[in-house]
Amino acid sequence: MPQHDTTPVPVTVLGLGLMGRALAAALLAAGHPVTVWNRTPAKAAELAGRGAVAAASVTEAVAASGLVIVCVSDYAAVRTLLGPAAPALAGRTLVNLTSGTSEEARETAAWAAERGAAAYLDGAILTVPQGIGTADAALLFSGPRASFDTYGPALRALGGGAEHLGADHGLAALYDVAMLGLMWSVLNGFLQGAALLGAAGVDAAAFEKVAGPGVGTVAGWLAGYARQIDEGAFPGDDAGLDTHVAAMDHLVHESEALGVSTELPRLVRETAARAMADGRGGEGYATLIRYFRRP
Amino acid sequence: MPQHDTTPVPVTVLGLGLMGRALAAALLAAGHPVTVWNRTPAKAAELAGRGAVAAASVTEAVAASGLVIVCVSDYAAVRTLLGPAAPALAGRTLVNLTSGTSEEARETAAWAAERGAAAYLDGAILTVPQGIGTADAALLFSGPRASFDTYGPALRALGGGAEHLGADHGLAALYDVAMLGLMWSVLNGFLQGAALLGAAGVDAAAFEKVAGPGVGTVAGWLAGYARQIDEGAFPGDDAGLDTHVAAMDHLVHESEALGVSTELPRLVRETAARAMADGRGGEGYATLIRYFRRP
Repeated sequence: MPQHDTTPVPVTVLGLGLMGRALAAALLAAGHPVTVWNRTPAKAAELAGRGAVAAASVTEAVAASGLVIVCVSDYAAVRTLLGPAAPALAGRTLVNLTSGTSEEARETAAWAAERGAAAYLDGAILTVPQGIGTADAALLFSGPRASFDTYGPALRALGGGAEHLGADHGLAALYDVAMLGLMWSVLNGFLQGAALLGAAGVDAAAFEKVAGPGVGTVAGWLAGYARQIDEGAFPGDDAGLDTHVAAMDHLVHESEALGVSTELPRLVRETAARAMADGRGGEGYATLIRYFRRP
Repeated sequence: MPQHDTTPVPVTVLGLGLMGRALAAALLAAGHPVTVWNRTPAKAAELAGRGAVAAASVTEAVAASGLVIVCVSDYAAVRTLLGPAAPALAGRTLVNLTSGTSEEARETAAWAAERGAAAYLDGAILTVPQGIGTADAALLFSGPRASFDTYGPALRALGGGAEHLGADHGLAALYDVAMLGLMWSVLNGFLQGAALLGAAGVDAAAFEKVAGPGVGTVAGWLAGYARQIDEGAFPGDDAGLDTHVAAMDHLVHESEALGVSTELPRLVRETAARAMADGRGGEGYATLIRYFRRP
């Protein structure tokens, strides 16, 4: 077997907000030489005390490492920050963990390439700062696979669940909003249920005892529904849409009767009603993908 | 310790749709003497072959057991079916697993009491017919606790996760729609993400590999949010609503750009925007319970 050099590589972290500081700390903990820079230098002090080098300028920070990670408030801030340091980017691999859209990610990839960067990876962080550096923390990356592999140990030091999605630089941002949308849906579904049961005198903790495991059960069905979506066939083996729609009426009715919001229940019912009107009452739930696809 | 009689008690099952047949089969498998009845008698034949007694009338079926379980299409069907057999109900415990509203459950409890039933339990089944009789299957019951305890072994034969929610007969139906609402929210969040990523050429199976575990992670947060709701305090320790709202804009923008539905993303954003307008941007996500409570 070939021997690989496992010496932790030097890494630069630009932007020391809550998340940036967590990233730098995780890299230090994994033994990487870390150079940091922040617009307001005070935030670098604590990290310097733990062994990081606080660079005097962005250019100096970028020049210090082959791998440069940036995590700031938005993509405009990335350009403003890196613009003056552009000459130093030549030959560096830039990893951008700033939240943004897929379009911004693709534009920034082109921008970095024009400035001679060796590679650009766009990333999304699916955890809170407290989760950074833990074995389960999921971080998603898109861009050249070879760069992800080269810097795999450093990227996995940020989160054990670091994953490469594909060469399209926009994928990380797209997965990010898709996952956030799913998260908000789960939370809103829980809040709707808690509001409904709360109006009947049941506390949210009691509802959670049933709801928490229930969400886990539903999570287990997603792989099967994903297969149906990819195959374009939606058998109603478990329950047909017509069965769901009858129960959706109950949800709207109960919400009205108890005086809680009916917006989410009505949206749920209206989407299913469209499928019923199209004669899909005998198909399974995942047939609704058609109505999420088209406005 | 007192000795309990663990001999499986006789049970009657009225209504042999997919779910009713699964209920009767689970009781037979647990060793209960089972009497069945169905409007169209053919469906009783297979169960009779496995040891069930097919009664010639509803009255005969109700008279056969101290525990009578009914599972039909709706509550109107329950009354139509049991009406003529009302005299036989005296002294029986009626367990109604038909889907309906909390109001219908409370009305049916009164209706059964007027006809001399010993007790009425209203129930909700949170699984598909294939799940009935398994250790994890969740069934929820509300009504007198003593009756749930008396018939515990039979009710747990239907699903190991059988649970008593409280004396209010309406609770099972309310939990049922709250859980269904949560389920639809999870599924719709997944469909929105699958539509979004599908428009960028990613198949649903690839999205599920990230989404499935992600839903499990979010499920783990619900207990903490439930505590905040019950305490009425919503610290933004993990992420303030203002951070969420910025990402919600990305979700709406990406959905528009890729030409998929924006209805669910807009509802998510509008609910959060209301909280922002009320000056709650620094609070955590669960503060949105206020907007689910009030229409």
